[in-house]
Amino acid sequence: MIANKNCIIRLSRYKNAIYRLRDLGFVKVFSENLADATGVTASQVRKDFSMFGITGNRKGGYEISSLIDRLGEILGKNRVEKVVIVGSGHLASALMQYKGFEKEGIKIEAAFDIDPEKFDKNAAIPVLPADELKGFAAANNIKVGILAVPEIAAQRAADAMFDAGIKGIMNFAPIRLKSPNDCTINNVNLEIELENLIYFVNIIGKKEI
Amino acid sequence: MIANKNCIIRLSRYKNAIYRLRDLGFVKVFSENLADATGVTASQVRKDFSMFGITGNRKGGYEISSLIDRLGEILGKNRVEKVVIVGSGHLASALMQYKGFEKEGIKIEAAFDIDPEKFDKNAAIPVLPADELKGFAAANNIKVGILAVPEIAAQRAADAMFDAGIKGIMNFAPIRLKSPNDCTINNVNLEIELENLIYFVNIIGKKEI
Repeated sequence: MIANKNCIIRLSRYKNAIYRLRDLGFVKVFSENLADATGVTASQVRKDFSMFGITGNRKGGYEISSLIDRLGEILGKNRVEKVVIVGSGHLASALMQYKGFEKEGIKIEAAFDIDPEKFDKNAAIPVLPADELKGFAAANNIKVGILAVPEIAAQRAADAMFDAGIKGIMNFAPIRLKSPNDCTINNVNLEIELENLIYFVNIIGKKEI
Repeated sequence: MIANKNCIIRLSRYKNAIYRLRDLGFVKVFSENLADATGVTASQVRKDFSMFGITGNRKGGYEISSLIDRLGEILGKNRVEKVVIVGSGHLASALMQYKGFEKEGIKIEAAFDIDPEKFDKNAAIPVLPADELKGFAAANNIKVGILAVPEIAAQRAADAMFDAGIKGIMNFAPIRLKSPNDCTINNVNLEIELENLIYFVNIIGKKEI
């Protein structure tokens, strides 16, 4: 399969737009609709779809229900994806409440912390001792985790996640983690995003970024 | 000035790495160091720097103190940037506590909400009534805001921000906002980031994303 990162991101965006259109009662969608909703050209939409054998026609457009099935297959999202979160501070709490994940079929199964005062086995998303991560991940086949601990604790926490068999980390700590070769790190640097935005507002002006 | 988004993001990353090196007691830095710290090639570092007239030499490298000054000028970051946050729920609370912003000279001056129970004029970051946003933004020359309200309230809140003279929004709500032509939207879609990571872990394997 040939699919680069940007293509996957576009497919995710198409899928999000398609879900919203479906929720509004739409049955068909045109490449132009998806282009408008996601900020790309209609020909890009058609190109991305045709790469995965998805075809529509100019008159009728694409059927939303079959698009959703096919995009779900491509993105591996026809089942709930289980993830864990390491950390239970303000950011972790916010992420545990973040509605966007559930909408995408992503379920945070548990949070892990080293502070006994944070432990709460009975919460909707239980907060468990960090040393239970490895057993929990093995028992629940968890391969992806969110890292939301302070910078100073991040590498050690990441190492514990790798040791627990986690292969992908969404990292909110503002450091570049050292990781094994078979693991993927997605760095979320909110301050860089915001700084970048400030730069554009101050100097460059209008631009969707 | 010629500078695309990716170049600005790289410059921000160099700056972050340089601050950390300075904090460790370093005085000089080589393009190779910055390449290692930020995941680009050394020639890319030199190219980015030379684009802004920053020159070093192979033997001595770049002086950290002058690099910090120059990058601060380029990124407009030699003063504190004031922003507001709209919303005061879990995500907004987490962002108000997020250390990364302060480290980058970004200060959240106030939060705004429509729920009187959330108002707190005496908090470190005061939570104020939404209808005070316009006056506050004008009095404090605020041009950039963070939007952290539920999806259903996002467009209305954004419109109020535009009306208050805000020109750049960092948007955490999972919708594409309609915005005036002179305004910039930076969409932060955590679920797309995480979905993308899950996809890579399941199908593609190791890749820094």
